[in-house]
Amino acid sequence: MIKMPSSGRLRTNDPAGVRKRVLDATADSFQRRGYHSTSTHDIVRAAGVTGGALHHHFPTKKALALAVIGERVARAVEKNWIEPVRSARNAAEGIQVAFEQIAASFDRQKTILGCPLNNLALELALADSEFRQAIDDIYRSWRDVIADKVRADVIVGVDAPDAENLATFVIASYSGAVAQAKAGQTTSPLRACAMQLAAHMKLGATPG
Amino acid sequence: MIKMPSSGRLRTNDPAGVRKRVLDATADSFQRRGYHSTSTHDIVRAAGVTGGALHHHFPTKKALALAVIGERVARAVEKNWIEPVRSARNAAEGIQVAFEQIAASFDRQKTILGCPLNNLALELALADSEFRQAIDDIYRSWRDVIADKVRADVIVGVDAPDAENLATFVIASYSGAVAQAKAGQTTSPLRACAMQLAAHMKLGATPG
Repeated sequence: MIKMPSSGRLRTNDPAGVRKRVLDATADSFQRRGYHSTSTHDIVRAAGVTGGALHHHFPTKKALALAVIGERVARAVEKNWIEPVRSARNAAEGIQVAFEQIAASFDRQKTILGCPLNNLALELALADSEFRQAIDDIYRSWRDVIADKVRADVIVGVDAPDAENLATFVIASYSGAVAQAKAGQTTSPLRACAMQLAAHMKLGATPG
Repeated sequence: MIKMPSSGRLRTNDPAGVRKRVLDATADSFQRRGYHSTSTHDIVRAAGVTGGALHHHFPTKKALALAVIGERVARAVEKNWIEPVRSARNAAEGIQVAFEQIAASFDRQKTILGCPLNNLALELALADSEFRQAIDDIYRSWRDVIADKVRADVIVGVDAPDAENLATFVIASYSGAVAQAKAGQTTSPLRACAMQLAAHMKLGATPG
């Protein structure tokens, strides 16, 4: 729903607001239907902007998609994964918190839409090299944060290459769990993988 | 490439051959570009069939996609995962063989296209409930085969619920590894996850 000012008309002199609404609407549509099934018309309607305003901010659908990846998808990974991992006492706990919060969030939603990064990765990695690079950059940052946290854990004490491998494994099991969750419309794959990862990282399933 | 008979014309009285060519061409196009970006025109051209023949076998794009999922995607999971797991001495070895064979196959290809099941799962799970069900059925069979093998392993000796969770985890880490491999166009995520799974299942990384 678009919030209308009391005059009943959308303000036209709010470029930052227009840009934000377009990105929000596009990110939402990509998440529900994907890049290829989202039309400019869908975005104009959902964001409550004119075609001219959309074109002013994002001259091409590619420019819009790159902004969604760089500003919305990267932010979702930051909020749902990087922040919990960074603020946890150790990597294993941060990973459990991320899984648990995302599973709880999926349980509150009517439909499990999946991981925005994984959804776009599979749809767009081969469609355009800039899309692929932007997506790979997010995976890379995500792996780096987990690997750094693992290396900082005195308790786990894995060596550097193993920290990278473990970070790749954590993200892989998460992404794949979400794929099974989306196919089955149930969060049980997320909970199964969180338990397995807890055991793998030599912790109980419940963060202490 | 379509193999032409020596007459230079395709045989028209070979319905099974036409059906097979259509399924092969469609599965290939779905894998490269996805369902939504594949047109009937693409399939007619790639399969070397008439529009009428295509329509005779598959009256709708949905019917065609369900046949691709049920006959081509399910068969790929059978060949690449279910057979190696079933024929291995134990689950851990079968899983290592599957990862290794798929990574080697990706290394031989110019482009890492990803896992056909995971690609279609993320694109189609929310597009149509029959698509979602058909995809979920494949995940379920795949999990069952791994869980059965784990339960049959005297060496690992996990209990029944843990076997289901472990199967979910194995498939998740594989699917997610392929997503990262597709985004980075490198097989290193597959090899990292295979090593982590080997450790998780208390085996060395090399199947004996």
